[in-house]
Amino acid sequence: MVAYYPPMGWNSWDCYGAAVDEKTVKANADYMAKNLKKYGWEYIVVDIEWYQPSVLTHEYQPFAELVMDEYSRLIPAENRFPSAAGGKGFAPLAEYVHSLGLKFGIHIMRGIPRQAAASRSKILNSEYTADKVAVYNNICMWNPDMYGTNPDCPGAADYYNSLFELYAEWGVDFVKVDDICRNDNNEGEIRLIYHAIKSCGRDIVLSLSPGPAKLSQAEFLKEYANMWRITDDFWDRWGLLYAMFERAAAWAQHSGAGHWPDADMLPIGPINQVYGKENWTKFTCDEQMTMMSLWCMMRSPLMIGGELNGFDDFTLSLVTNRELLEIEKKSYCARQLYRRVNDGCEEIVWFAPVTDGSCWYLAIFNAGEKESNISVDISRLGIAPKKAYDIWLGTEETVSDSITKRVSPHGVCLLKLS
Amino acid sequence: MVAYYPPMGWNSWDCYGAAVDEKTVKANADYMAKNLKKYGWEYIVVDIEWYQPSVLTHEYQPFAELVMDEYSRLIPAENRFPSAAGGKGFAPLAEYVHSLGLKFGIHIMRGIPRQAAASRSKILNSEYTADKVAVYNNICMWNPDMYGTNPDCPGAADYYNSLFELYAEWGVDFVKVDDICRNDNNEGEIRLIYHAIKSCGRDIVLSLSPGPAKLSQAEFLKEYANMWRITDDFWDRWGLLYAMFERAAAWAQHSGAGHWPDADMLPIGPINQVYGKENWTKFTCDEQMTMMSLWCMMRSPLMIGGELNGFDDFTLSLVTNRELLEIEKKSYCARQLYRRVNDGCEEIVWFAPVTDGSCWYLAIFNAGEKESNISVDISRLGIAPKKAYDIWLGTEETVSDSITKRVSPHGVCLLKLS
Amino acid sequence: MVAYYPPMGWNSWDCYGAAVDEKTVKANADYMAKNLKKYGWEYIVVDIEWYQPSVLTHEYQPFAELVMDEYSRLIPAENRFPSAAGGKGFAPLAEYVHSLGLKFGIHIMRGIPRQAAASRSKILNSEYTADKVAVYNNICMWNPDMYGTNPDCPGAADYYNSLFELYAEWGVDFVKVDDICRNDNNEGEIRLIYHAIKSCGRDIVLSLSPGPAKLSQAEFLKEYANMWRITDDFWDRWGLLYAMFERAAAWAQHSGAGHWPDADMLPIGPINQVYGKENWTKFTCDEQMTMMSLWCMMRSPLMIGGELNGFDDFTLSLVTNRELLEIEKKSYCARQLYRRVNDGCEEIVWFAPVTDGSCWYLAIFNAGEKESNISVDISRLGIAPKKAYDIWLGTEETVSDSITKRVSPHGVCLLKLS
Amino acid sequence: MVAYYPPMGWNSWDCYGAAVDEKTVKANADYMAKNLKKYGWEYIVVDIEWYQPSVLTHEYQPFAELVMDEYSRLIPAENRFPSAAGGKGFAPLAEYVHSLGLKFGIHIMRGIPRQAAASRSKILNSEYTADKVAVYNNICMWNPDMYGTNPDCPGAADYYNSLFELYAEWGVDFVKVDDICRNDNNEGEIRLIYHAIKSCGRDIVLSLSPGPAKLSQAEFLKEYANMWRITDDFWDRWGLLYAMFERAAAWAQHSGAGHWPDADMLPIGPINQVYGKENWTKFTCDEQMTMMSLWCMMRSPLMIGGELNGFDDFTLSLVTNRELLEIEKKSYCARQLYRRVNDGCEEIVWFAPVTDGSCWYLAIFNAGEKESNISVDISRLGIAPKKAYDIWLGTEETVSDSITKRVSPHGVCLLKLS
Repeated sequence: MVAYYPPMGWNSWDCYGAAVDEKTVKANADYMAKNLKKYGWEYIVVDIEWYQPSVLTHEYQPFAELVMDEYSRLIPAENRFPSAAGGKGFAPLAEYVHSLGLKFGIHIMRGIPRQAAASRSKILNSEYTADKVAVYNNICMWNPDMYGTNPDCPGAADYYNSLFELYAEWGVDFVKVDDICRNDNNEGEIRLIYHAIKSCGRDIVLSLSPGPAKLSQAEFLKEYANMWRITDDFWDRWGLLYAMFERAAAWAQHSGAGHWPDADMLPIGPINQVYGKENWTKFTCDEQMTMMSLWCMMRSPLMIGGELNGFDDFTLSLVTNRELLEIEKKSYCARQLYRRVNDGCEEIVWFAPVTDGSCWYLAIFNAGEKESNISVDISRLGIAPKKAYDIWLGTEETVSDSITKRVSPHGVCLLKLS
Repeated sequence: MVAYYPPMGWNSWDCYGAAVDEKTVKANADYMAKNLKKYGWEYIVVDIEWYQPSVLTHEYQPFAELVMDEYSRLIPAENRFPSAAGGKGFAPLAEYVHSLGLKFGIHIMRGIPRQAAASRSKILNSEYTADKVAVYNNICMWNPDMYGTNPDCPGAADYYNSLFELYAEWGVDFVKVDDICRNDNNEGEIRLIYHAIKSCGRDIVLSLSPGPAKLSQAEFLKEYANMWRITDDFWDRWGLLYAMFERAAAWAQHSGAGHWPDADMLPIGPINQVYGKENWTKFTCDEQMTMMSLWCMMRSPLMIGGELNGFDDFTLSLVTNRELLEIEKKSYCARQLYRRVNDGCEEIVWFAPVTDGSCWYLAIFNAGEKESNISVDISRLGIAPKKAYDIWLGTEETVSDSITKRVSPHGVCLLKLS
Repeated sequence: MVAYYPPMGWNSWDCYGAAVDEKTVKANADYMAKNLKKYGWEYIVVDIEWYQPSVLTHEYQPFAELVMDEYSRLIPAENRFPSAAGGKGFAPLAEYVHSLGLKFGIHIMRGIPRQAAASRSKILNSEYTADKVAVYNNICMWNPDMYGTNPDCPGAADYYNSLFELYAEWGVDFVKVDDICRNDNNEGEIRLIYHAIKSCGRDIVLSLSPGPAKLSQAEFLKEYANMWRITDDFWDRWGLLYAMFERAAAWAQHSGAGHWPDADMLPIGPINQVYGKENWTKFTCDEQMTMMSLWCMMRSPLMIGGELNGFDDFTLSLVTNRELLEIEKKSYCARQLYRRVNDGCEEIVWFAPVTDGSCWYLAIFNAGEKESNISVDISRLGIAPKKAYDIWLGTEETVSDSITKRVSPHGVCLLKLS
Repeated sequence: MVAYYPPMGWNSWDCYGAAVDEKTVKANADYMAKNLKKYGWEYIVVDIEWYQPSVLTHEYQPFAELVMDEYSRLIPAENRFPSAAGGKGFAPLAEYVHSLGLKFGIHIMRGIPRQAAASRSKILNSEYTADKVAVYNNICMWNPDMYGTNPDCPGAADYYNSLFELYAEWGVDFVKVDDICRNDNNEGEIRLIYHAIKSCGRDIVLSLSPGPAKLSQAEFLKEYANMWRITDDFWDRWGLLYAMFERAAAWAQHSGAGHWPDADMLPIGPINQVYGKENWTKFTCDEQMTMMSLWCMMRSPLMIGGELNGFDDFTLSLVTNRELLEIEKKSYCARQLYRRVNDGCEEIVWFAPVTDGSCWYLAIFNAGEKESNISVDISRLGIAPKKAYDIWLGTEETVSDSITKRVSPHGVCLLKLS
């Protein structure tokens, strides 16, 4: 099964925007292979506009000339990905990543290039040309590259099949499809992509973006995708992390082997490198532990957003805590137990059993602005654990009916009860 | 802890409407003591308007004269509850129920009688009279008996305290407060009632009605009540049962020891007795098993609505299935796994672990209109059970990664996996 | 035709709230007869709760005992209206007002007294009693006196017929029915009242309150009532006057002989007398001229709210400007020409022709906060007047294609063009 | 003043869709000059896509190549407009129309051609190129030709100025700008167009399309445009005509010299010629008289949609009724008097005075499905006419307080009272 556990990896967006290049990708793959692979991290994902030669930051350039093959398929810009020279595309880079024991992923925008439609370009193995497949009024509101396709036109299936055939040739293991997840009327194109993957002859994880996905579409997403964004782009601001509690609570019940609600990348360590070197995450340490705890309790995929080679000890400790990462693999049926304001403190408590009944996870979040004692009445859960292991502190204590912990503002106490 | 498990009992409304009498209550208590007590059933609840001497059916009579004591408190109509004569109220009937090893409950409308406000009646131990406590424009839209009270007027607390002091004297164990659960601005009066119970000196289960309660008020309800209705009145129509799946899925995460979302009474066996003898439940057998399965999986309280003395074997089997009723006590963290239309059949699948990890419950509902094979991919749950016990059929079989069952329309296959 | 022109008169509410008495009514009638009658003023209206013996201000007293005859009809409290003694009701006061050459009006709440329903009182010439006519959950949200009636119960027509039969006997010329105009589902009771008036044998103006009436109900109101409130209670605050421009613009097209959108009473001179003597209107002189101009341009009824006997010269000048009041009688087809913000000033311009084509009225309002020059391009109207008479200043000038006037903040320039 | 009266003319859309050609335009101009000019008709307007060489019907062809000059300006396709050869554009055709004593108009889509943005074309007298002016996500949802422009980019003003400079050179008197009227955030581009016209050195009527325009934008439209559509495309179906009564009633107050709410073209006589010869208007004669009466009463511009050379006597009589067309020039302050269902007939009555007070117009529409007698109480208007001239029948009668006419279903009685 593809994505039996929530995928874990690194993605270039938070650091390099639309301007990521080959050298950077390799450097992060090297770091991951050496330092993180043994903790379960495996995906290296190249994010948006690897086909645009002139982009420099996160900002797109309308009507720029994109690199495209004769069949309306975008291919890597050689000035940024030199190994793509000679029509090799991402094959050499994928091979490099695979040689490290890791997996390789790319980002694409749904649809067909506007320049392909304007020039009425060919589609591989199709009697249709790009202008027949493109829908002139189906466009992305935030990126100028593509037109949406008409799923009822057979040329659209031809086009998507030709894309994933190429990606399979390159050795791609993971595709993040953008401008599709939260859209109305997205089912036609998602189905085309799903079937293109099924028939391409290679296991490829399908990730849909951007969020927020619609809860009403949960069952469709569980059937046709491996992960889907439950939020718009997530960055290093408390307001966004705070808002994630509500989304996580709503979506947690929809996680399961092969289908994972996705809370987006982890903006930790040095991010936004494309704008200079001074862009360390603005999250406090407490906020980062809160984020990691929430993502693991809801079993979100984990995609690191920071430049790995700049990680300090604290940041490294976040992604190498074995007890923490084990939650992603062992727990199930997680839920937000309650959320309430008590004596001026906003308490958010999550609970998750494990499949073999050997332990339980309890996360006690303080979403308020002052350090507070938070008590959880374990007897209401119907369980009677004897001891509690603190996953962030590494300490253990005995417990009875009720647990009371002192928790920092924006912080968390994450316990393994047994 | 009051209501550590979901309360189970009998309520007079489905059978007798506003016209229940003492003889009927005793007859059902006798039956329960003899036939159901050993399966965990224990509450006998007298529903609405026991203080109205002339009511004959489910329909209320506007501006009728109610039986009231000198302190604005409604008391049982002696023509319907003869043992209440001499100012004894419900004490003799409660004593009778207790003598059978059962518990006694009553229904009340929130607020203070309109006739008390019109006559400016006294309130016990209060300097306020009823007209000062009543709010002239805070009324129930479907029952003419009461005015809401003003929680900011100290006389309102005096009034509610005097009520529960009386109920404690009578020996009441369970109070269903009506016209309060789904209302806007209900928190003031709920708090008064909560505190009146706390200070009355007796353990009393607090049940709030009618629904649908607001999901946004879940944490408040968990703190101040033991059970609350998640639906308007439930009757023996498939449309209502079908609609309950959605409510159950939304509320399941909020159940826990001491606080239970309530899917309302079970209209099984002979109901609507007040209108004649031909009113057997219109639910099919499949629908009744579906209802019992869903209520147990979501851990709703169970309140039988039919006349117990008229139960046939099938109906009796519904409420005496030990493996079924055990779900209410052993399971936790239940959730709707998914709901989808597949090949014309609407499949709804629920899953629940148990606290000791010894087994799992899986309910496979067919909400469609034709018999269908329904497959559940157990591997997506991350568990590997060896055998499956069918709780309704009493049969056992071995299982692997996927389970496929043939399920009747409106029916259920309820499995205990281990 | 009843109310061929917009009714003009005095109403007790702004000054005396629910506590008006006979002496006050007579004093205002005397003043009107002497000073205002010759300008067209004619109605003297007694507002709410003349049947409540103990009310002292604008505030209602829930569950107070009201004066009522044996047929569920409220009658004047003798302690406030001594001439009502001996069962004479308002007949003596109406006779007094008539003797001055004026007309007499009263206010009523729609519905039947709550105390009549509680005591199951009789209705004149009806087989129904009050409890059968009253609807227990159809209540006014701001006054505790009445229950709404059930228009489908024949007793409701009997009741309303008995009311207007009594009012006709008393000599009432105008009835303001409250708690009805803006209500949902108000058509049933309005029809009962309309027919009760038709059959009572006397011309009675029917005024409906409170607003805002619904624009979607305009045609119904034009057929069944003579005036109806387009606004909630209007008081002496600029914000309310400012908001009236929008309502007036929306409703102006619905005014015509016999049916008048009503912008509510004019809070001028000394108001709120019941609270003491220092309550002079807070409107500036400019605002009062703006109000009078707008009411006349939209042809609203004019009901003075202040105590007439306390009027100063300026206030008196507002209600005795013959050229102003002539707009109410001569103009038609008025409309807001435009409303725009120009150079920081909010300009609102109204225009009205007259039926004989002899002149045009142009009102130039400055709804902004600073004195401004406002220009109106008369050529866009398709007319070519030669001169402009300023109705407030009493001056005349020649005009050409465009008119430019300097207008005070919150002020108006009101012109008669010819 | 441009458009002192509502413009009257012919437009090619209803007949020829996107496929109109020079020969057809000339033939209609010839007919108008000979038969209609003396009744006030004067504009000949070439509608959409005169720059698209291959279009054949009302349907657009996405990504087709458009005829464009070197400065990103679309120019007439020579295969359809031969006189445009040699870079002369519409100058020869405009000259021809002028030679007949008529005026010449064209249609444009707001924005800049997509192909200009894709090819980064130049703009006349500007340092900006088309890709800088175009906004990649600001597109028309129903036509594939253009991108919207960014009004904050100085190149956008350069572009629009260059357009109207060209149109002035050609001799264009009327421009219908499409994809702009009902759009959100349309004010920026409308202002650019307004100023481009002001500075182009020629009087050009500005017409905005498509509707429905927003009522909340009325004052803006009155200032910046001469006419604007109050409806989406209007065709020969009763449902659309019926719906126009409501729009007309809402907008009538906003008509005035120079600024006219526009109810769209008149689909009369032979329409949809591009699809074959059998497309006579589906409106009944009564419906056509209703349409003409409503358009004139609300003073909408009148643009004939049918092929003039195919007019029969009845159709010709609609556009040559002098008394009818005089309403457009003499009346003002029109309003819907009322609309109500009476005895199963939906009566809609309009009234309009004239500027000199010499007469009044009264239109009595029967919007119901059966012939009915409809009575209008003239006394409610405050006027006392002596006689009534029937504009469609040409008969005259005396009148008193009330007028009763028998009106056909979907028909009208249009009277001039004096």
